[in-house]
Order: sequence, then C-alpha cells, then structure tokens
Amino acid sequence: MRYLITFSYDGSNYNGYQIQKNKPTIQGELERILSMILNDNVKVSASGRTDAKVHAVNQKAHFDCCKKLDLIKFKMSLNKLMPSDIYIKDIKNVKDDFHARFNVKEKEYHYKINLKEYNPFDRKYIYQYNRELNIDKMIEASKYLIGTHNYKSFTKSDINRDDYIRTIKQIKIVNKDILTIKFTGNGFLRYMVRNIVGTLIAVGEEKIEPNAVKKILELQDRTKALKTSPPEGLYLYNVKY
Amino acid sequence: MRYLITFSYDGSNYNGYQIQKNKPTIQGELERILSMILNDNVKVSASGRTDAKVHAVNQKAHFDCCKKLDLIKFKMSLNKLMPSDIYIKDIKNVKDDFHARFNVKEKEYHYKINLKEYNPFDRKYIYQYNRELNIDKMIEASKYLIGTHNYKSFTKSDINRDDYIRTIKQIKIVNKDILTIKFTGNGFLRYMVRNIVGTLIAVGEEKIEPNAVKKILELQDRTKALKTSPPEGLYLYNVKY
Repeated sequence: MRYLITFSYDGSNYNGYQIQKNKPTIQGELERILSMILNDNVKVSASGRTDAKVHAVNQKAHFDCCKKLDLIKFKMSLNKLMPSDIYIKDIKNVKDDFHARFNVKEKEYHYKINLKEYNPFDRKYIYQYNRELNIDKMIEASKYLIGTHNYKSFTKSDINRDDYIRTIKQIKIVNKDILTIKFTGNGFLRYMVRNIVGTLIAVGEEKIEPNAVKKILELQDRTKALKTSPPEGLYLYNVKY
Repeated sequence: MRYLITFSYDGSNYNGYQIQKNKPTIQGELERILSMILNDNVKVSASGRTDAKVHAVNQKAHFDCCKKLDLIKFKMSLNKLMPSDIYIKDIKNVKDDFHARFNVKEKEYHYKINLKEYNPFDRKYIYQYNRELNIDKMIEASKYLIGTHNYKSFTKSDINRDDYIRTIKQIKIVNKDILTIKFTGNGFLRYMVRNIVGTLIAVGEEKIEPNAVKKILELQDRTKALKTSPPEGLYLYNVKY
C-alpha cells in the first residue's frame, strides 16, 4: 500500500531535505522514524528536495508499507516520535502508481524579507534586509520571468542538465508587515527561487533596471544572474497533484 | 554617565537573564559585549530577571560609562557584536540616580498558548496546548487575581521572603489566532505569571471552578496553586518607569 504524507518543517537545524551520511536531514529523520514504527526498512520519496536551512509548510512525500494503517492513530504515533521541528500534518492512502515527485502539477514557494527593524525571533525564518527596496520596480521585473522559459541563468552554476525549461505561472509580491514573494509554477530548478529573489532585490535596490532581468533570462548563463538570497527566507509552501 | 538600554531577546538558548558561571545568560552576553566595546568592566542592572527559555520584547537595563556616547553609532556597534538572538532596540542617557529595577512603575507580561494544530515554527515561542479550554471561565477566574494581594500561593515554593504583596492592574485574555494572556502590574514574583497561567488553564479545563482561584489566593500557600506553565510561552513585554 502506498501512503502520501503532508508535513511541515523548520529547516534551520538540517542539512537540507535529502538524506546524507552522518548529517541531520529531513529525509533521514522521516526514514528513521517510519522504519522504527513500521519495523521495516522504509524509504520515502518527496516532491523534491529543499536545501539546507530552507523550510517547508506543506511538503509531500510517499512511502510504501505492507500494512493497512489506521491513519489517525498512525499520524499521532509518528508525531510523538518525530523531532519537534518536523510535523506530520496529514497522511492518506494513494494509488500504487502515484509518485510524489513525478506527479507534481504545481509547486508554490514563498520568500520572506523583513525591511523593518531586526527582530531576533525571526532570525531563522525571515531574511533581514536593511536597505530600501523599490517594490514597484521589483513587480515590473517579475513580469519578465512569468511564462515558459529556459531558466538556466537562475540555477546552480555547477549543474549541467538537459532540461532547464520550466513554467512560472505567477509571481506575487505582497508588501504588508513582511515583504513576501510568492512563486507558483510547474517546478523549480535548484536555487532558482533564491537566485530570482537575489536578482529582484538588485532591481529593488536600483542596481539594475527591471528589463535587465529579461536579458539575464535570455542569456541562459548563470554567471549573469545576481546573488543567491539566503535560505532562511524560503518556504516550500505547497505542492499540488 | 548612566545609560538605559531597551532590548529584546529570544530566551530559547539561555539559562535565563541573570549571569551564572559557565552558562549562557543574557546578562553575561550584555556585560561581555559592553565591556569589550567600552574597554572597561561594565555591569548592567536590568528591570528584573527572566527565567531560562523565557523571552523579552522590551526588557530594560542600565549601565554606567565614563564616556559620552554617540548613541546612534553605539547602538549599531553593539548590535554588530551581539549574538543574533539579542537585539538592542534603543539606548538613551538617563539621570545618575535612575535605577532600572528600583524605578519600575509597571511591568507587562504576555503568555501565548496555541490551541490549534501544532506548528513546528512556534515550538520555542508558543506553548502548545492540545485540549479545549473554556475561555469564559478563565476570564471569570482572572478577575479574582486583579488588585493588591499577597501572591505567595503563586510564587516559587522554595522562596521565603518578606514581601509577597503585589498589585495586578489588569489581566486581559485575547483569543484570536493565538490565545494571549496579558498581565500588567507593578511587579511580579518569581514564577508568578507562569503559576497563574497554570491555574487559569486548570480553570479552562474545568478541573477547578473560577472561584477556586480566590481561595487559592487567600490561602497564601504555594502548594495550593496548580502547575507552572512552561517557559516558552512567556514574554516580558514592556517595562514602564
């Protein structure tokens, strides 16, 4: 039987989602607890990785198990054993051919920036930015990134892969108390959100013009994009199938 | 010259405000950084202590220094050296006879409780409570605690002191997203807020009736009060002179 879990985590104390030897990872904790509770060698497949210190509000992953589980009880037992910075929000039965990564239709990421005075309670959860940003110019720049494009300029520079094509459906910039940049798309390359945010910040600082973003995108060259914004502001917010 | 600082801290990683040998404390960090920056042996006097893992939004402390400081620059230098979980919000010059503890007119504490589903991001900042509470009964019970009383029943049981008399001016219970219990008074005994919260929770759970709180108060016996609520929900919110 295949199960899909929805879970949130504070990524601050982890080396990222993906399992690594002798380093704390979200996948490592999930597999350790699931294997213990099911008395089996359980492997989980998530919708995708998140990098070190990046958070998730609704990450999803599937795993297989020979038993039929009492879902309410199982969720409670899992959460009792989980470290306090990972929380299983939901568990449900899915079809045998469902895949938490391959079946993703849409992903949503949020990036949070504090432009106001520093708050020590947010230091691991919001990127503190101490200069003024021209939000209107950032919104203008974000329009060039929407649609189906080759996003090679915005991925990790040492990655070589065949497919840099992704579709960003929406970039919403909301400036209430906290500046939040919300991305919705069919998938995101490694570091893509943080590199786009770094580039939008350069636009907001008026270091580059909004239409420079169009050129950076077209060049398909990672060295042209601006700084990668830090991990603590980033949240995998939702995954849709 | 005497200076008054206003500062906030995430108490999660500290053994409390008051300096202790070989243990991380807020006072220890403040004195270490101030002594370093002023090249002198600086001692700070706060409005009062906070216990291990308790937070502060606006704690206040004074210190003396022979120099006239450029306050804007000094605040910046301090915050550059401070650990990221302590933040100096303000610094100002005060009269030589001002005392951050003895001159306190009013203190405000907030206690935060989450009655909804667990959120891993709040685990160090909000007390997670997984049972229903009758808020109306808690509000009714809180009325008995307002005024000038001997609060011996609500302090740490191993403390013997002459003066258990304090005045609570207001207890405000606000149940939006998060249940927040706000206390205003001329001063609070050790553990007093957390013991009152523990007792109000017992009322909310309908383990005891609201008017039982009146009896507990009158008995002046610590063993009659209910559980001490955990530190992570407590914030020293403001100090007035």
